[in-house]
Amino acid sequence: MADNRQVLIARLPSGRLQPGDFEIQKAAVPTCREGEVLCRTLALTIGAGQRAGLQGSASYAGAPVAGVVMGGTGVARVEASNSDAFRVGDVVVAPTGWQDYSVHPARAVRRVDAGTDPALHLGVLGTNGLTAYFGLLEVGKPRPGETVVVSAAAGSVGHIVGQIAKRQQCRVVGVAGSVEKCRILVEELGFDSAVNYKDPDFRAAFKAATPGRIDVYFDNTGGDILESALFRMNTHGRIVCCGAVSQYDTANPGPGPRGVPGLLVNNRVRMEGFLVFDYMERYDKARAEMAGWIERGELKPRVTEFDGLEKAPEAFVELLGGVNVGTTIVRVV
Amino acid sequence: MADNRQVLIARLPSGRLQPGDFEIQKAAVPTCREGEVLCRTLALTIGAGQRAGLQGSASYAGAPVAGVVMGGTGVARVEASNSDAFRVGDVVVAPTGWQDYSVHPARAVRRVDAGTDPALHLGVLGTNGLTAYFGLLEVGKPRPGETVVVSAAAGSVGHIVGQIAKRQQCRVVGVAGSVEKCRILVEELGFDSAVNYKDPDFRAAFKAATPGRIDVYFDNTGGDILESALFRMNTHGRIVCCGAVSQYDTANPGPGPRGVPGLLVNNRVRMEGFLVFDYMERYDKARAEMAGWIERGELKPRVTEFDGLEKAPEAFVELLGGVNVGTTIVRVV
Repeated sequence: MADNRQVLIARLPSGRLQPGDFEIQKAAVPTCREGEVLCRTLALTIGAGQRAGLQGSASYAGAPVAGVVMGGTGVARVEASNSDAFRVGDVVVAPTGWQDYSVHPARAVRRVDAGTDPALHLGVLGTNGLTAYFGLLEVGKPRPGETVVVSAAAGSVGHIVGQIAKRQQCRVVGVAGSVEKCRILVEELGFDSAVNYKDPDFRAAFKAATPGRIDVYFDNTGGDILESALFRMNTHGRIVCCGAVSQYDTANPGPGPRGVPGLLVNNRVRMEGFLVFDYMERYDKARAEMAGWIERGELKPRVTEFDGLEKAPEAFVELLGGVNVGTTIVRVV
Repeated sequence: MADNRQVLIARLPSGRLQPGDFEIQKAAVPTCREGEVLCRTLALTIGAGQRAGLQGSASYAGAPVAGVVMGGTGVARVEASNSDAFRVGDVVVAPTGWQDYSVHPARAVRRVDAGTDPALHLGVLGTNGLTAYFGLLEVGKPRPGETVVVSAAAGSVGHIVGQIAKRQQCRVVGVAGSVEKCRILVEELGFDSAVNYKDPDFRAAFKAATPGRIDVYFDNTGGDILESALFRMNTHGRIVCCGAVSQYDTANPGPGPRGVPGLLVNNRVRMEGFLVFDYMERYDKARAEMAGWIERGELKPRVTEFDGLEKAPEAFVELLGGVNVGTTIVRVV
C-alpha cells in the first residue's frame, strides 16, 4: 500500500485564500480498529462554504485550526473493514478529508451505487443537490408562474436550484460572475435569463431581468447581490438564506444589506436561513426523485473537474475566484 | 361651529424631527356630501411609524409632501351625517389627521363604543394592539417556556407584545431607553427582565438577561438592537420585523445589521416582516379577546397623554425622543 498523501491547512488564511495556505505531507496509511472501515479516496468535492469554516469566527462547523488535514467529503472505496456492515470493494460517501486514506466508524459512512460516477454522488445526489432541493422547495416554496432568482447560479447549488425552479413552472433568473456562465445558464440549463454581477450596469440589468419583481430569491452570496434582490422583492416574497460566499474569502465581512429590516416590513418579506442537515430524514426520497429527473434528462448536473489530490488547493482557490461551473470535483484516483 | 384648526406639515424634516416642522392654520369647517360624515376629533394617536412616512423614500404609506394636514388616526364624534350608516353623536375611529374637523366617506370610518375611553380605541384596541397581537402570535409563534425579547418595549406596540408573551408562558425581556422605562416594564407590566439600551454596558447586560438565548425577537427598532439580538438567537429562532424606529428620525439610515445573512443560516433563523393590515379580517375577534384580557386585569395598556391639538408636534417629537411610555395620545376635546 502506498503512502497516505495528506493536504494540510498550513495556516489559516488572513485574507483571500491562496494555494500556499495548504501543504502536502506523506503519512502512514492508518489501520482500522473494531467497527471501523479503511477508505481509499476516489474523488472529493469542494464547496464554497468550506471557506467559511476557515474563518476565525466559528461557523456551524466549529472553529478552525491550522496543522490538520483539510476536511471535506469524498467518495471512497473500502480497502479494509472491521465492520459487518461493509465489505472490501464497497463504495461509500465519507468525510474523507483531503487525503488518500482515512478510517471511519461504520456509522459515519454511507454505501452508494458503485456503478454511478462519484461526481454525481458528491454533486446533485450529495449535499449540494439536497441543499438546492430542500432550500428551494421547503423554504422558498415557489408557486407556478412566480419569479425565482438565484445567486451564484452557476455554482454547485445554484445551477440545480434554477433547474428545479423551472420544473416548478417558475420564471428563473440566474446571477453569475461571467458572460460565459450566463450563457451556459440560459443556453444549456434552461434559465429564462441570467445577469452578470460583474457588469458595471448590474443593477439596471438586474432590474430589467426581473420586470415582475422577485417572489423567491435563493441567496448563495449575501452582500451586494442580496441587497439588490431585497430592493426587488414582491409583497410576501421569500428569501432563502443558503450561503454568503461574498463574505467568506475575506478577513473583514462587510456590513449587512441596507433594507433590513425596513424593506422586509414594507413588503412583508420572509427571510429564512436553513441548513440541509435538518432534512436528513427525507434525503433518500429526495435523492430518488432527483435521480429520476436526471435519468429523464430533466435535470442536468454540471461538474468542474480537477485531476489529482495535489490539485485540491488550486481547485478551492478557483472555486472562490468564481472560475468553476457546477460542482467542483477533485479526482484522486 | 368653531374654526377648524389644522396642523400642517410645514416642511419635510431633513434630520431629527422638530416642532417647527409643523405649523397651525385655521380653515373653514368642511361640509359633508352624499354618503359622507362630518367628524369632530376627540383624540389622536401618534405612532413612531409615522416618522417613516415623512422620509423622502416612500414607505408603504406612499411618498410624503409638505403643505398638507398631517395624517393620523383619531377617535371622533359624528357632527353631521349624510349616510344612513351613521347618526349624529356616534363615536367613530377615522383617519382624521391632525385637525378638529374632517369629512369621510361612511365606509372609511368605524363605529366604536362611545362609553369606552378613546385612548383604548386608539391603543390596545387599535392598530397598536392588533400589531402586537398578530405580530407576536402569528409571525413569532412563541411556545410556552421560550424566551421572547421585544425592543421599544415600553412603546405603544412593545408594552403589549411583552404582556401577551407572558400570557403565553414565555420568559419576557424588554429593551427600552431609560431606567424608568425598564422599572415600569418589570414592576408594573410583569416583564421578567428589562435592559436599557442607552447603558454603555448594554451588550453585556443584554447577554446576561438572555442566558438561554432568544427564541422570538420582536423588533421595533432595527439597527444596533436588532444586531445584538441576531447574535443571541437560538436555533430555529424567529425575528418579527415590525418596525425600525432607530432608522426613522434621520435623513441617513444606517447599513443593515452584521450577521445578515450568515447568522440566519448558521442558526436557521426566520426573519419576517409583516403589516397588520394583512390580518384585517380577524381584527374583530382579536379586539374582543384583548378586551376580555383588559377587563380581567390580565393586560394593562399604558398611555402617555398630551392635552390639546396644538401639542401634537411636541407629542411626536417626544415620542421619537423616547420620552413616552405606552400609546401616545393627544386629547383634542
